[in-house]
Amino acid sequence: MQRLWDRHMALATFGALDQGGVNRPAFSPIDAQARLRVIDWGARIGLLASLDSIGNLFLRRPGTRPELAPVFTGSHLDTQPTGGKFDGAYGVLAGLEMLETFHDAGCETLRDIVLVIWANEEGSRFAPTTMGSSVFAASLSLAQALQAQDEHGERLSEVLPTFLDAHGPLPVALDLIPFAYVEAHIEQGPVLEAEQRALGIVTGIQGLRWFEIEVCGQEAHAGTTPKAARADALHTAVNLAHALFEYFDGIGDEVRFTIGRWRTEPGSPNTVPGRVKFTIDLRHQKAESLAAFSQAIEDRCQAYRGVCEVTIAQLSESPPIEFSESVQHLLDQSAQVWGVPRMVLISGATHDAKWLNAMTPSGMLFVPCEHGISHNQRENTKREDLAAGAQVLAESILRLARQAN
Amino acid sequence: MQRLWDRHMALATFGALDQGGVNRPAFSPIDAQARLRVIDWGARIGLLASLDSIGNLFLRRPGTRPELAPVFTGSHLDTQPTGGKFDGAYGVLAGLEMLETFHDAGCETLRDIVLVIWANEEGSRFAPTTMGSSVFAASLSLAQALQAQDEHGERLSEVLPTFLDAHGPLPVALDLIPFAYVEAHIEQGPVLEAEQRALGIVTGIQGLRWFEIEVCGQEAHAGTTPKAARADALHTAVNLAHALFEYFDGIGDEVRFTIGRWRTEPGSPNTVPGRVKFTIDLRHQKAESLAAFSQAIEDRCQAYRGVCEVTIAQLSESPPIEFSESVQHLLDQSAQVWGVPRMVLISGATHDAKWLNAMTPSGMLFVPCEHGISHNQRENTKREDLAAGAQVLAESILRLARQAN
Repeated sequence: MQRLWDRHMALATFGALDQGGVNRPAFSPIDAQARLRVIDWGARIGLLASLDSIGNLFLRRPGTRPELAPVFTGSHLDTQPTGGKFDGAYGVLAGLEMLETFHDAGCETLRDIVLVIWANEEGSRFAPTTMGSSVFAASLSLAQALQAQDEHGERLSEVLPTFLDAHGPLPVALDLIPFAYVEAHIEQGPVLEAEQRALGIVTGIQGLRWFEIEVCGQEAHAGTTPKAARADALHTAVNLAHALFEYFDGIGDEVRFTIGRWRTEPGSPNTVPGRVKFTIDLRHQKAESLAAFSQAIEDRCQAYRGVCEVTIAQLSESPPIEFSESVQHLLDQSAQVWGVPRMVLISGATHDAKWLNAMTPSGMLFVPCEHGISHNQRENTKREDLAAGAQVLAESILRLARQAN
Repeated sequence: MQRLWDRHMALATFGALDQGGVNRPAFSPIDAQARLRVIDWGARIGLLASLDSIGNLFLRRPGTRPELAPVFTGSHLDTQPTGGKFDGAYGVLAGLEMLETFHDAGCETLRDIVLVIWANEEGSRFAPTTMGSSVFAASLSLAQALQAQDEHGERLSEVLPTFLDAHGPLPVALDLIPFAYVEAHIEQGPVLEAEQRALGIVTGIQGLRWFEIEVCGQEAHAGTTPKAARADALHTAVNLAHALFEYFDGIGDEVRFTIGRWRTEPGSPNTVPGRVKFTIDLRHQKAESLAAFSQAIEDRCQAYRGVCEVTIAQLSESPPIEFSESVQHLLDQSAQVWGVPRMVLISGATHDAKWLNAMTPSGMLFVPCEHGISHNQRENTKREDLAAGAQVLAESILRLARQAN
């Protein structure tokens, strides 16, 4: 338990911020330095490192039958600009803890076990998020990924060679087709803490749609313009948003509705706003419900057209993911073996496991996250929860790696 | 009628913008150049120019009894960054038109008539607005005004000497105590146009209070955070704003309620907002109503405190102004003489006349403003409306300037 905690603290020195958090941008020198530390820890127990073209790093523990497809576990080490010590790092370090335990116990497996550090999960500098895993799963081509530009116009293709070189001379990872993938992660939400469960067995990842609503009226002088002469974009936007909140407040917690960005133009206290734009982040675990709720949003936009114009645009869409039932079952059995209090839950956040799920039976386990706070320097998790999750991960991976078929 | 229109077009070349508007910042070289043109026009009919320390420019037409206090009219020539051709300029050029008419007709008055161009009415670069008239009326000290800083930290005291020098050698304006003040202005609102009246007799200027409402919640992940765990600042702010709009929508047009600025933090589509700040611009012509409506706003802020904190701060206050009844009566009589369709109305915007009203009987007349659009390059007024207003102004000033006491 202490070793796993200490590893988190050691890794958090790479990009440490003054309020306890971490800034470790994907593809940065500090990202590479953190990886070198993990490569070094792995080398002590004989893990074989290799690197692919997008910067995914693989640490392989050989099994007795190298012709069998390897079992994968892992996560990411890059962080948000003001991220925490556990998001991503936990999945990597829980996997390392497991492999050290197997090493110390002299435990053999049929299949190779691969601990993977996916490149650029956060997508903070170079979009999209989960870049490394989506290239690995061929959902995104390497060529497309290399075209990604940061906000200053610098391309990933200019940055990546230096990052890859910083790993030192490593063999190129080739032909790694996983037999299964299990990822451990902090929940990044408050559910496990509230329900007092040490472990969450993740059934899937919510589908997501982003919309932008634009309300167009007419700028006018706040002092001289009577009500009847106003086309107040903010007034209409507030009424519409109020109706949307009222609708979604009446629906259970399986739907997530958030207005996160709201821009008002011209934004002068004594000018009636001529334009408001706001975003909607809509999530649900079922594709048909997502479609129905999207329609409900469109209907309300339609209803509030009048003195102001209201338009709606869908910015992005990500379909819901359902993880392998056999992996969910395996995680549940493993937790039972070790007596870990558990529950099933859906992930509201996206993860690398989303892309792996398209190519191999995949699953995730969550450990609690203090007050549900993540993507924040205050992110925290109890050391006993970290340990319990690692134990369930080890039990599950061991069972998978001992399956001949 | 043509001369008055042509003068507007000529003046609009000083700081002309490409969509028909004007950018003539207060205290700028272009502001001084426009004034030199007016000084030149005035000189042709014998007007005597003088300048005070804040940059108010006075063009005096002597009467037969110089010991009597002079009658004032005028307005301003500085504009908003994307202003129009008529805001301010009209009051100056209507006064000039009047004086040219008196000159051409050989019309004598007992009292001097002073056409004044107030400095920095807009306050766009150096706050406050109506700076020149408030210094003239001793509501603001010259020393305070000179401390004003623009957004780059430059002080008015550094800029003003160059501006004053640009007028050439002019005598210092001293001891000008007006007998009365009448200002002509475009309405900057849609009321006269809607009511099809060529003239508005202004009863006063609405009192104004600015508030800032701040709603504080807790940032959270849009995907992982259930409703019960959210302290969504935007949700609360929308509910509060909706309640405020609902309340003020139920009250007549004598109250003006505007939410003009609205800021949402952090403003990321997939983060539940932790903080929203919005402004309220509240106007009414009665001080006691302004106080009652302010209380109604505070009550609603109180009512929406709960999962989020709601605070309210008053940013500024300007009490209502009632113009001199005798000046209103005079304007009405003058309009009657010339058969100009008229109505009384309150000004929602502030004007230099507000400060003059504190020292001398003052009043304003409004002419229509196309579609109520002002502070905008599209600002427009019909030439016959400009002419009718100038005629009523001339009639009124003539009567005042012929009063011995």
